[in-house]
Amino acid sequence: MPNDPLITYSKLQKVFSKDVLNENNRELIGECVRAALKNLRDEDKIDLKSLVSQKEYFAFSTKKKNSRAVNNSLFLDNPREWDNFSTALAKNQLADFSAEKITRIIYSAAISFCCYVDIHKDGDQKTPGTFFEYLIGHLFACRLGVNPTTRLPVLNLDMETTLPTDFVFNLGKDKPKFHLPIKISTRERVIQVWAHQRVLDGVYGTGRFLGTPVILTETKTDQKKKEVIEICLPDQWRIYQMHIAQLKRIYYLDVPVSYDKLNAVFPPLNVKAFGHFFFELDNLTG
Amino acid sequence: MPNDPLITYSKLQKVFSKDVLNENNRELIGECVRAALKNLRDEDKIDLKSLVSQKEYFAFSTKKKNSRAVNNSLFLDNPREWDNFSTALAKNQLADFSAEKITRIIYSAAISFCCYVDIHKDGDQKTPGTFFEYLIGHLFACRLGVNPTTRLPVLNLDMETTLPTDFVFNLGKDKPKFHLPIKISTRERVIQVWAHQRVLDGVYGTGRFLGTPVILTETKTDQKKKEVIEICLPDQWRIYQMHIAQLKRIYYLDVPVSYDKLNAVFPPLNVKAFGHFFFELDNLTG
Repeated sequence: MPNDPLITYSKLQKVFSKDVLNENNRELIGECVRAALKNLRDEDKIDLKSLVSQKEYFAFSTKKKNSRAVNNSLFLDNPREWDNFSTALAKNQLADFSAEKITRIIYSAAISFCCYVDIHKDGDQKTPGTFFEYLIGHLFACRLGVNPTTRLPVLNLDMETTLPTDFVFNLGKDKPKFHLPIKISTRERVIQVWAHQRVLDGVYGTGRFLGTPVILTETKTDQKKKEVIEICLPDQWRIYQMHIAQLKRIYYLDVPVSYDKLNAVFPPLNVKAFGHFFFELDNLTG
Repeated sequence: MPNDPLITYSKLQKVFSKDVLNENNRELIGECVRAALKNLRDEDKIDLKSLVSQKEYFAFSTKKKNSRAVNNSLFLDNPREWDNFSTALAKNQLADFSAEKITRIIYSAAISFCCYVDIHKDGDQKTPGTFFEYLIGHLFACRLGVNPTTRLPVLNLDMETTLPTDFVFNLGKDKPKFHLPIKISTRERVIQVWAHQRVLDGVYGTGRFLGTPVILTETKTDQKKKEVIEICLPDQWRIYQMHIAQLKRIYYLDVPVSYDKLNAVFPPLNVKAFGHFFFELDNLTG
């Protein structure tokens, strides 16, 4: 069964955390994506009724069930796109790619695997979430050129312990470090991201870690009505950014309309498509 | 079917939020508990292997499945206990009750309904959670004598919005207010409780709201091995209490062993059995 992305996924599970940066991980991710896209090409597609302005969504559909919503204009049904991006990333030569193109390639990689799991497994939320962590964690590590850790030492007078974290990347002395929460969607759980940033600010000093969460989408599909909405809490985000901690960027693959607007209000909340990350590293750390 | 606690529960759902303080809610909660206990009396009990020191657990067991773990020494298989407590609470005459006894009565009310749902419904986590919110929300409101709200106005220069919250209780001018998160268990999601407290401190001023979460238990049962453990993160709690916000009390019905020890270390984390709440109100608000 060379075409079952879940078999490749289980290989990835065995090796990923040992060396996040390893190119073999990107090979395995590519195999997962290729197999998922190939399988999905045999399934029907149904149009969903998008209640999100200026976005169109569809779902893959079998007799038994439908996948999650897929953004029409972001979805690239071609595994070559991933291969080309992967090769360019290995050489650190991304000049031929736009931020928009990279966003679409990574969105397609993530959503194709998620949709495959949606229609072949029952109520499995964990596998798509972990795959997305692998995908983003590896790409982030590649761009920065260092491996992440998920545990930091705490030495605070008579307290000596370690703090479990999302991926954190240490670029070395006199450079900021990155704090990278990775989520399929956030809803009301998003407050955790700000709270973890607050803990890092408190324990290690404000500004020491740049909080740059990467989120896939905030869409929710009503399976009966076949309607897609985005669940967003922009007013709460503004309060969190003012009163809990400051996140440096919030990256999305499918940027929600009402969060995009937060770029224009106070306090500044920099919500961007993830593709931009690959070109703005100097801005972030400068 | 007067003996189906879920029918009474659906009545409770319809009326609860309109007037949390209403004694009719306590009547309906009592009916749920009575029906659950009566049903559970016909089920088998199996002993679980407790890996928690000095605690014994059992589970209710049908052919198809087992309930969650029940703490032997806290469980009172007698609906009269609830009725007596309910009557005493209505008169605000709790002198005949110890904090330990009240903890056992409330624990038994909560766990009996949860166990009934465990063995009669499939994978339903929401119903036990909501029932527990009703139970604790109502008792808290009774003791304070005021109804809670779940939304607060934010007026901050050019920002005008409302903040959705857990139950908050306003005792009036010149008195502290209560912030009451209610959870069946917390695990790694507990950081949300501190984060919400931080938002309240930030928006309304530190000390304005007393954070007093009430949690049922932190037990987890391995269904194959029939083993019970408590999942606790005491070092992380200390870091949250130092770096996110200060919670006034953390109440449990079944106090986890390793959190109980936090009463003795720095920073002060007051972890108590919930029964104490009914006797220490003057301490809290004074």
